[in-house]
Amino acid sequence: MSIAKGYAAKSVKSKLVPFSFERRAPGAHDVALQIAYCGVCHSDVHQVRNDWKNSLYPCVPGHEIVGRVTAVGEHVTKYKTGDLVAVGCMVDSCQHCASCAEGEEQYCENGFLATYNGPFKPDGTNTYGGYSDHLVVHEKFVLRVPASLGRNLKGVAPLLCAGVTTYSPLKHWKVGPGQKVAIVGLGGLGHVAVKLAVALGAEVTVVTTSPSKEEAARKLGAIDVVYSKNPPAMLQHAEKFDFVLSTVPVQHDINPYINLLKRDGHIVLVGALEPLAKGTDNMQLATKRRSQSGSFIGSIAETQEVLDFCAQHGITSDVELIDIKHINQAFADVDAGKVPYRFVIDMATL
Amino acid sequence: MSIAKGYAAKSVKSKLVPFSFERRAPGAHDVALQIAYCGVCHSDVHQVRNDWKNSLYPCVPGHEIVGRVTAVGEHVTKYKTGDLVAVGCMVDSCQHCASCAEGEEQYCENGFLATYNGPFKPDGTNTYGGYSDHLVVHEKFVLRVPASLGRNLKGVAPLLCAGVTTYSPLKHWKVGPGQKVAIVGLGGLGHVAVKLAVALGAEVTVVTTSPSKEEAARKLGAIDVVYSKNPPAMLQHAEKFDFVLSTVPVQHDINPYINLLKRDGHIVLVGALEPLAKGTDNMQLATKRRSQSGSFIGSIAETQEVLDFCAQHGITSDVELIDIKHINQAFADVDAGKVPYRFVIDMATL
Repeated sequence: MSIAKGYAAKSVKSKLVPFSFERRAPGAHDVALQIAYCGVCHSDVHQVRNDWKNSLYPCVPGHEIVGRVTAVGEHVTKYKTGDLVAVGCMVDSCQHCASCAEGEEQYCENGFLATYNGPFKPDGTNTYGGYSDHLVVHEKFVLRVPASLGRNLKGVAPLLCAGVTTYSPLKHWKVGPGQKVAIVGLGGLGHVAVKLAVALGAEVTVVTTSPSKEEAARKLGAIDVVYSKNPPAMLQHAEKFDFVLSTVPVQHDINPYINLLKRDGHIVLVGALEPLAKGTDNMQLATKRRSQSGSFIGSIAETQEVLDFCAQHGITSDVELIDIKHINQAFADVDAGKVPYRFVIDMATL
Repeated sequence: MSIAKGYAAKSVKSKLVPFSFERRAPGAHDVALQIAYCGVCHSDVHQVRNDWKNSLYPCVPGHEIVGRVTAVGEHVTKYKTGDLVAVGCMVDSCQHCASCAEGEEQYCENGFLATYNGPFKPDGTNTYGGYSDHLVVHEKFVLRVPASLGRNLKGVAPLLCAGVTTYSPLKHWKVGPGQKVAIVGLGGLGHVAVKLAVALGAEVTVVTTSPSKEEAARKLGAIDVVYSKNPPAMLQHAEKFDFVLSTVPVQHDINPYINLLKRDGHIVLVGALEPLAKGTDNMQLATKRRSQSGSFIGSIAETQEVLDFCAQHGITSDVELIDIKHINQAFADVDAGKVPYRFVIDMATL
């Protein structure tokens, strides 16, 4: 057992404040790591605010974690002290259901154990995330950070959620060369999605409510930018795309985006985990046999894959480093959409 | 040119009344047929009532047509006088777009020509459907009725729309042995869907708002019946199905049906061609990577395939034969859901 320092929301109405708590001593298969950086995900804001009606308090958010191994259990073979490692959204799963057996732990039929707010933990106790100084995790849920990514470690942190959350559907729906892909929303998820889809060989268009983001989108590799509040522009791009990825983190009307799809095209939503604002117009789906899907983070194997893919293609997230003492202002900025892609907490400021 | 007798709605507010109109003389590639039976599809009611805001009047409905060839154009090689044939929802398409080139005329990018209410016809004139004594159609859009189905020709008519509309998604999403399939709604489309899915080797459950339909569902081959207005029963069947086909012909809330799907399962809507009543809950889609799709009738090749498949498996639609003079009462009954699967007009009563 060790005492961890971190930041927690003590209740749905409280701000994040310094908080001390216990971490277990590393077991035979555990890895202990000193956290260097932790990304601030929009879902951290949702969870602290109990938007999904399942929050447990105190709540120590954070599931975009990178750091260095400080100790390993006796049976750990994959990692050793000093290794650069990462932890994402999951720290355990049942390991015996069909999804786990197929290496899809994010869909664990008994509920994976979330890195924080892990309400499915068998003994009913809470889990505490990466807004803290150290972490103890089973080696199966620890990822290796390729050496080349170590040069920009703060930009690696968001790959653990934003990265794999967009990479997983791009891979699952086989996005690649020759395909036209639209990324809706250019925030934390969206900007990584653009980089990943471009690196996968697709021709990428950004669809945004902010015309001011055009230059940024093109810098990330987009060949076109469509202002979604301009109906003629949207109509001009109708039936052009094989795949649309909506990264919009709040409920929205997806019907205008469905119309961007070719026959047999897919729109996949990874941002909004809630009932959508408007009913889907099935005339738009049926007359082109289009599909609307959701996708949830990604597997542990895919998380390692996205890290390796990013190392190979020189991809990291564009981030703004913050002092943990400014976390409440950062939450307000995330909520207001006033974030240049991603805030990352410099854990040295703890 | 020939004079056809039929029934038409002269305006959005008028009932169907006797109507005479011209059919073209058979061209070199045309087949002329004497109509024996025509099914009464729910979409006939929608179209006559202008529910889709695209109706042209006079409107002669009918796209579930079977009959016998009376004449063929000089270049017709597939059919000869006396052959048992059928015509479904389409009588032409552009034949050069990507969808037509791939044999998916129902998704013709220039708009296929509908058997009736064909607003995409190049010269702007209307098309008149199967509530009439004869029809002239390009041979490419004529289907062969296998001899064994000739013994129950009236039960074949609904296969041309209800049959292919349900067969196409079952084939497209590869429904087969070892799969659990739920068919939502047990009307004209639903009862054919059950027969087809059973014949394809799937284990079929019917989901219905009418507990009284249980016996009928089991007779059709369903191994289970779930009453959709009973939340505990629905919950008991959560995550059990690989594929859900909603045949409900009006807008409805699909969220309770999405929850029936396993991970990576698909729900496909073929009945409601309109905006759905409630926004899809993306939490339900994303946390199981489920998909929601629409599908629209089927191709000409699939229409022939479903006729051949039905001949092979001894499948026809369960119908009630009506006199065309009772068509307005039949429309009222279809609208009220008071139809034992499908009304079929006996064209000898014209």
